[in-house]
Amino acid sequence: NMATMLCYLTTDANVGQSCLDRAVQDAVQNTFNRITIDGDTSTNDSFMLVATGAAGNKPINSSGNELAEKFILNLKDVAVELAQAIVKDGEGATKFVTVRVENGVNQQDALEVAYTVAHSPLVKTALFASDPNWGRILAVVGRASVSQLKIDQVSIWLDDVAVVDHGQPAASYTEEAGQKVMNQEIITIRISLGLGKAIEEIWTTDLSHEYVTINAEYRT
Amino acid sequence: NMATMLCYLTTDANVGQSCLDRAVQDAVQNTFNRITIDGDTSTNDSFMLVATGAAGNKPINSSGNELAEKFILNLKDVAVELAQAIVKDGEGATKFVTVRVENGVNQQDALEVAYTVAHSPLVKTALFASDPNWGRILAVVGRASVSQLKIDQVSIWLDDVAVVDHGQPAASYTEEAGQKVMNQEIITIRISLGLGKAIEEIWTTDLSHEYVTINAEYRT
Repeated sequence: NMATMLCYLTTDANVGQSCLDRAVQDAVQNTFNRITIDGDTSTNDSFMLVATGAAGNKPINSSGNELAEKFILNLKDVAVELAQAIVKDGEGATKFVTVRVENGVNQQDALEVAYTVAHSPLVKTALFASDPNWGRILAVVGRASVSQLKIDQVSIWLDDVAVVDHGQPAASYTEEAGQKVMNQEIITIRISLGLGKAIEEIWTTDLSHEYVTINAEYRT
Repeated sequence: NMATMLCYLTTDANVGQSCLDRAVQDAVQNTFNRITIDGDTSTNDSFMLVATGAAGNKPINSSGNELAEKFILNLKDVAVELAQAIVKDGEGATKFVTVRVENGVNQQDALEVAYTVAHSPLVKTALFASDPNWGRILAVVGRASVSQLKIDQVSIWLDDVAVVDHGQPAASYTEEAGQKVMNQEIITIRISLGLGKAIEEIWTTDLSHEYVTINAEYRT
């Protein structure tokens, strides 16, 4: 689930296998495994970390010790930067969009809502048009394949602007405030499902004319 | 699951409630519930059949009798025509595409594969470009959320042209033959999963520049 890409990271640090395993899992989970351009993936999607040990340091081994934690955190920083760069470089992307789903019953439901919103062509074209069309977002939340959904518990924000409050238009919402957020290149759509404690966040793009041009013209 | 639409059908025939119920289920199941433009749906999606009885005929009641069967079949003919018309009238549609999945383990898996292919922006842009990019179709089959998939059992045809044979490029395939099918306005992508007996068929469109224009310019 890496939006069609191969990632190779190398380090000359001397790191033990179990620490490398944990570092890769930690680095990929909320970065490369949480990006999507159009929902399509590649059979080649892969993330590889090579540690040569050429630095000759005392092996970084047990997790829990300070050096191992530092290595893991730094690897994750690199993964965040690269994964976001892939989204920003998505075909025809004009926006970098975070879809954050909060208060889900479980991680699976939260993730399903996030991907359903992120993959909706109607939401993506509204993002391209800088159109604060919250009705499209709410409708997509409503059709997500989740175990539970109470529409009168759903609230939605564009950045910090409340647009939907418990399934209704937010009282404080103005088109002007929504428009201001949508004009930005970096936007967060935040959705609270109001049911539990699960949080998931993914990164995606809009759907532009250039997306169609690139994928219609590229031929194998 | 009606691709954002309201459908009202009326008849002056005198038809009993249970026969009407069955007729609507039959008419909708493989027509209005098997169309998709972009995967987005409306909270208002609905299909209504009104029978006024104004014709004053003896009530058409029991299913199984000849008149009831004729009524049901004719209603389905109307539903096929209207459902296909919705797809042909989809935003920016330049192709009418049938995605037929055969030999699935069960209906749910067959339908999931069909929708995953029909919603893939990479497949849809290839259709817009008339590009016989069977690799995109096979890759999408591979990422469908199904209970079972054996890629070496998967075969794919564009109309009658075999493009993938048990997971490999079909020996008889030529780019010329594939191109000829893709140049058509009406195309069937047929996929055999090679695992069971379930068949599902849905109708969809390509993804064109005009799709982006319409959905980016339309504002609520």
